[in-house]
Amino acid sequence: MGNKVQGTLLIIGGAEDKQGECEILSRFIELSGAEKSSIIVLTTATQEPERVGREYFNIFKRLGAGNVEVLDVDSRRRANHLYLVRLIDKATGIFLSGGDQLRITTILGGTAANEALRKAYLRGAIIAGTSAGASVMSNTMIVEGDSEEAPKLNTIKMAPGLGLLEEAVIDQHFAQRGRIGRLLSVVAHNPYIMGIGIDEDTAVLVHPDARLEIIGSQTVTFLDGRRVLYTNVSELSPGQALAIENVILHVLPKGFGFDLIRRTPLREEPVKGENNENY
Amino acid sequence: MGNKVQGTLLIIGGAEDKQGECEILSRFIELSGAEKSSIIVLTTATQEPERVGREYFNIFKRLGAGNVEVLDVDSRRRANHLYLVRLIDKATGIFLSGGDQLRITTILGGTAANEALRKAYLRGAIIAGTSAGASVMSNTMIVEGDSEEAPKLNTIKMAPGLGLLEEAVIDQHFAQRGRIGRLLSVVAHNPYIMGIGIDEDTAVLVHPDARLEIIGSQTVTFLDGRRVLYTNVSELSPGQALAIENVILHVLPKGFGFDLIRRTPLREEPVKGENNENY
Repeated sequence: MGNKVQGTLLIIGGAEDKQGECEILSRFIELSGAEKSSIIVLTTATQEPERVGREYFNIFKRLGAGNVEVLDVDSRRRANHLYLVRLIDKATGIFLSGGDQLRITTILGGTAANEALRKAYLRGAIIAGTSAGASVMSNTMIVEGDSEEAPKLNTIKMAPGLGLLEEAVIDQHFAQRGRIGRLLSVVAHNPYIMGIGIDEDTAVLVHPDARLEIIGSQTVTFLDGRRVLYTNVSELSPGQALAIENVILHVLPKGFGFDLIRRTPLREEPVKGENNENY
Repeated sequence: MGNKVQGTLLIIGGAEDKQGECEILSRFIELSGAEKSSIIVLTTATQEPERVGREYFNIFKRLGAGNVEVLDVDSRRRANHLYLVRLIDKATGIFLSGGDQLRITTILGGTAANEALRKAYLRGAIIAGTSAGASVMSNTMIVEGDSEEAPKLNTIKMAPGLGLLEEAVIDQHFAQRGRIGRLLSVVAHNPYIMGIGIDEDTAVLVHPDARLEIIGSQTVTFLDGRRVLYTNVSELSPGQALAIENVILHVLPKGFGFDLIRRTPLREEPVKGENNENY
């Protein structure tokens, strides 16, 4: 994480509530500064930038945002435009829509906009992403991989992400698309990586001290590979099934947190009697 | 398990190969005694006993079985019939088809056939079950529960099973139907229970010494709750999401085993250098 980070990440598992209380999106607006916020919506990931952009513009305005700019950065040329960089430099909140994570990295990767995004995060802005916009947060991201199948070596494809979140790999639409197999496969490739699977309408807030806070209606699954005793991932022939032994798993809903440095779950309140020898 | 068990369980995650090499069903025939086998197919679970019975009859004959009897035990009256008990008493292999696990327990539970089945297992027969026939093996079985959703308290229903397998709960069609959430929910209810999730075309053989052997094309997921530090399962209000911390997870394919007593994965061959201090 480094000591320099002052910003916050809001990593959303997709399909966040847009009609009801909008718990997750409200939190984004609040952390962006509410009526004083200056928000950018980047629709790079989606093939329907107009519809998606309009939708988020309307919601963010309804939730009390100050200034909202929707930017359809759909080419590397645009991603290097000074106008865009200046907007990002002034933003208090940046929102990456869903779509295709490879569109985000192939269009933004290595551009002036990407660098501005990183600087915004370091100086204290909130960077939010949903679905594909969530996947790109980490150093290495999942591009595709069969869901609802036993994890097999050749079904998972990874690529470099935007690198705002270190030592972790994000997966989204997690329980809804049965993706634990592919996230386990990622952890098997390098058990140092923390696998974080975020359900729909659920999000993690990554605070500057590397403490995660879980919000939304479903759960977040944490796969910790540091105690893994064995995996066959380096020896697999195509189509052979993965083995991985001794992964530590946590499933946590709203009200819980996670310490990414100590890799331990956090609870809002101590459990009754936990520190009470007379209990 | 007790010391008296001399039989073997073959617990199949459903959709086992019936056209190709039939690895799992061949193993059933082989362990039943091949051409000397005396096999009973119980179609109690299914609403299509004729079609299912004929299918297994033909496959088992093709795979070299000796005597095969398909019995549509569809009522408790039939399940108490002496004729059935005598057949089970002579069987070397008994196969429970898929369908609805509650049909099996409501029709067989507490009958003479059930008792005969248990005796057959103790004396050394192999008891196989696929899908619903797999779920009923344990003391407590999963009846229903939402798949592909975050585990929530009220979505899981359990009931007493046939009790051939102790200290574990089986789930089937595991990766294919995204069922880790509901199996985690079971483990949360009593972390002493070992959760065993079996993929399609995959099976565990439970040998008399409580060592499991994995066969088939996919994987088996083991959820060990003994190190669980916290779960909110006793405090949940309806619709609230489950929390469970510190589950130990193993995913194992063919060629691996699992020691149910020590709760540790087993490999066919030691890993290079594992017991070699000079490595």
